[in-house]
Amino acid sequence: MSKLLIKNVELINQGPQYPKMNIAITDNKITAISAKTIPGFADAQVIDGTDKLAVPGMVNAHTHAAMTLLRSYADDMALMDWLNKMIWPAEANLDGDAIYWGTQLAILEMLRSGTTAFADMYFFMDATARAVEETGFRASLARGLIGNAPDADTKLAENVELFQNWNNKADGRIKVMLGPHAPYTCNPEFLKKVKLAADKLGSEIHMHLSETEQEVKDCVQAYGKTPIEFADSFGFLENGLLAAHCVHVTPAEIKLMAAKKVRAVHNPQSNLKLASGFAPVPQMLQAQVCVALGTDGASSNNNLDMLEECRMAAMIHKGFSGDPLAVPAKTALDMATYNGAQAIGFDQLGKLEPGYLADIVLYDMHKPYWYPRHDRLSLFVYAANSADADTVIINGKLLLQHGKPLFMDEEKIYAECETRGKRLIAK
Amino acid sequence: MSKLLIKNVELINQGPQYPKMNIAITDNKITAISAKTIPGFADAQVIDGTDKLAVPGMVNAHTHAAMTLLRSYADDMALMDWLNKMIWPAEANLDGDAIYWGTQLAILEMLRSGTTAFADMYFFMDATARAVEETGFRASLARGLIGNAPDADTKLAENVELFQNWNNKADGRIKVMLGPHAPYTCNPEFLKKVKLAADKLGSEIHMHLSETEQEVKDCVQAYGKTPIEFADSFGFLENGLLAAHCVHVTPAEIKLMAAKKVRAVHNPQSNLKLASGFAPVPQMLQAQVCVALGTDGASSNNNLDMLEECRMAAMIHKGFSGDPLAVPAKTALDMATYNGAQAIGFDQLGKLEPGYLADIVLYDMHKPYWYPRHDRLSLFVYAANSADADTVIINGKLLLQHGKPLFMDEEKIYAECETRGKRLIAK
Repeated sequence: MSKLLIKNVELINQGPQYPKMNIAITDNKITAISAKTIPGFADAQVIDGTDKLAVPGMVNAHTHAAMTLLRSYADDMALMDWLNKMIWPAEANLDGDAIYWGTQLAILEMLRSGTTAFADMYFFMDATARAVEETGFRASLARGLIGNAPDADTKLAENVELFQNWNNKADGRIKVMLGPHAPYTCNPEFLKKVKLAADKLGSEIHMHLSETEQEVKDCVQAYGKTPIEFADSFGFLENGLLAAHCVHVTPAEIKLMAAKKVRAVHNPQSNLKLASGFAPVPQMLQAQVCVALGTDGASSNNNLDMLEECRMAAMIHKGFSGDPLAVPAKTALDMATYNGAQAIGFDQLGKLEPGYLADIVLYDMHKPYWYPRHDRLSLFVYAANSADADTVIINGKLLLQHGKPLFMDEEKIYAECETRGKRLIAK
Repeated sequence: MSKLLIKNVELINQGPQYPKMNIAITDNKITAISAKTIPGFADAQVIDGTDKLAVPGMVNAHTHAAMTLLRSYADDMALMDWLNKMIWPAEANLDGDAIYWGTQLAILEMLRSGTTAFADMYFFMDATARAVEETGFRASLARGLIGNAPDADTKLAENVELFQNWNNKADGRIKVMLGPHAPYTCNPEFLKKVKLAADKLGSEIHMHLSETEQEVKDCVQAYGKTPIEFADSFGFLENGLLAAHCVHVTPAEIKLMAAKKVRAVHNPQSNLKLASGFAPVPQMLQAQVCVALGTDGASSNNNLDMLEECRMAAMIHKGFSGDPLAVPAKTALDMATYNGAQAIGFDQLGKLEPGYLADIVLYDMHKPYWYPRHDRLSLFVYAANSADADTVIINGKLLLQHGKPLFMDEEKIYAECETRGKRLIAK
């Protein structure tokens, strides 16, 4: 039994008038939070929380982690030029080795910026799972399935195998979903096979849905259904659906999403950078849809900074709706933490409460923009910097201290990724 | 004669294939940039630029620096509630002492995040000028003038005195403008007095213009003119006009702005947070208007992070226009640097070229999101973090090294501002 004790820390879910608190962690869970001495923790490893703010680890609910290797390779281009001329040719050069190192880089970046879990959809996912297992991170993994490709069945078999090998493994830190890519890359015949496999495994589904106007038009033209309705027609909403983007969902779709507990992932920066549009986030939240946040891949963002996404989500919907009360700070924080945890399939995660999994970040408040401290939650969402992440605990294990990773070799990761990034685009 | 030599550094305005460079600084100017040894600098103070990226210091072209004291005091409120119930009552408690410390905090925050100059419009500006002089910072200062207030003439006299005492002082680091607040707070009689004073002094004008739809409507109703036309009717455009916001400018106004060289300051986060709207930035740039960037005050932002504004400017106009080629990375960088320098009245500033004033920031690229390095400019605008600012030189003087200010007492500033921030809202 391992014991960790965070002493004398401020909690983001408490007002400034509250006393400093102690957080007790036993194995992988928060077991007590109190302003008083917590009995039974005299022999625990102690972390000093003075002048730090404890926040639940942020959850990056939609990304393609190893796309870090293509960061800054292709920007300021029209979508189809970007995909056809740059991204897809480079991705054709990916292999398990590149994916492994690209994912290590992504995990290092997320760890250092206060993110503790992610949902991934990409290729060579066994390499991704190994990186997650080795680094102590938490993730929900899906093999991206291009159902219209000639080898679609082989890839579906890979995703099934990924589930069998990795679901609930690594001390429960890994979950596996099936990853049919999108309505425009997966034909109905293939999606029926995905449904059969999902039912058999008891697996959830991670899918891009309603990212662009064109996708919606094409989907309606081909099938007489909008993307969420299309996914529903295969029964995916009964399996549990993680729906990435949801930029152009209709009021009818939002109603359906709420009723069938679809989790929507809003990717504000990716949607802006690729000019995909403004997702109806206030409307989805109003309808009680679980809306989480994601960075999408690093080639359409270009970083994996979830605090930036959280702030962006709070900002752009005020501007776009014309209502300065749209998506207040607390809502944005919930989207980045608790909603994210729900979205990627971890139930007891995303809150600082006894019984919850111990994924906790301590932010160093000894920086200019943390003063004066009228309201800590507002300071976190509107003013703080992800580089303030000083201490990161995942599944009860201390992984980052004083801003430095304890178990990752940063120099090696930088060198391996620099080489592999160059190699991808040179071939 | 002081000499500084930055060795072995990468420049943001050069491609990755270029050799590492040396930057020679004599007194307050860049005197040479070369890949070879620069003669005459053997005895210079040397700064090692290895693995760092040299970028012109960013210019915050519109802010109210001492509003840092109200950071996180009032968020997620409707504009008039926010002003009437929270901001204005707290501001009524401001005095020179509070302004001095609030400005120190603002300068500390900007210095640590790679900003080297700002344009300010607020009260008790003598205190602001002292803070700028003492810290070695660069600024363009204006006394905010509420022309409809009973003491308007006294305040105008203060602004004139500020000009006489401080314009071109502090080794040329301070410029002074006149600061008529906005069309809705300044009547025509008062603005005629401002014009007379500006002509007499040879001073430029810093004014809020076209921030909200309501302002435009009211201005048209009262005067039959849109805000820029209104300012033009007093001859302000001939004095040199720094126009903050320009959210709702018409095509006719944009044409006028280009012809009369009005400098527009775009404040993306403030405009989003207060739901003011989306400024027609691509249209202004297309018309060759000098568009700079600003944070606005810390109570409507809530930080003074110019890299965040630069990224936001690059992102939101792609999303809002539906064109992923709108405001590319290079344009956003120019807005944050060279355009900003032009906007606030410093001609030879904002470029890494011999003859330019030496306001230079070195960013530490030894972080996860700087890998792999396919394109440094793209990495800076889309992926980097303002906390990477490692070394800051202003007017040829080294002010920040290894992320630490050399001449500012951080602990004292935090303590003074915490006390003063609480005092403002307690009264």
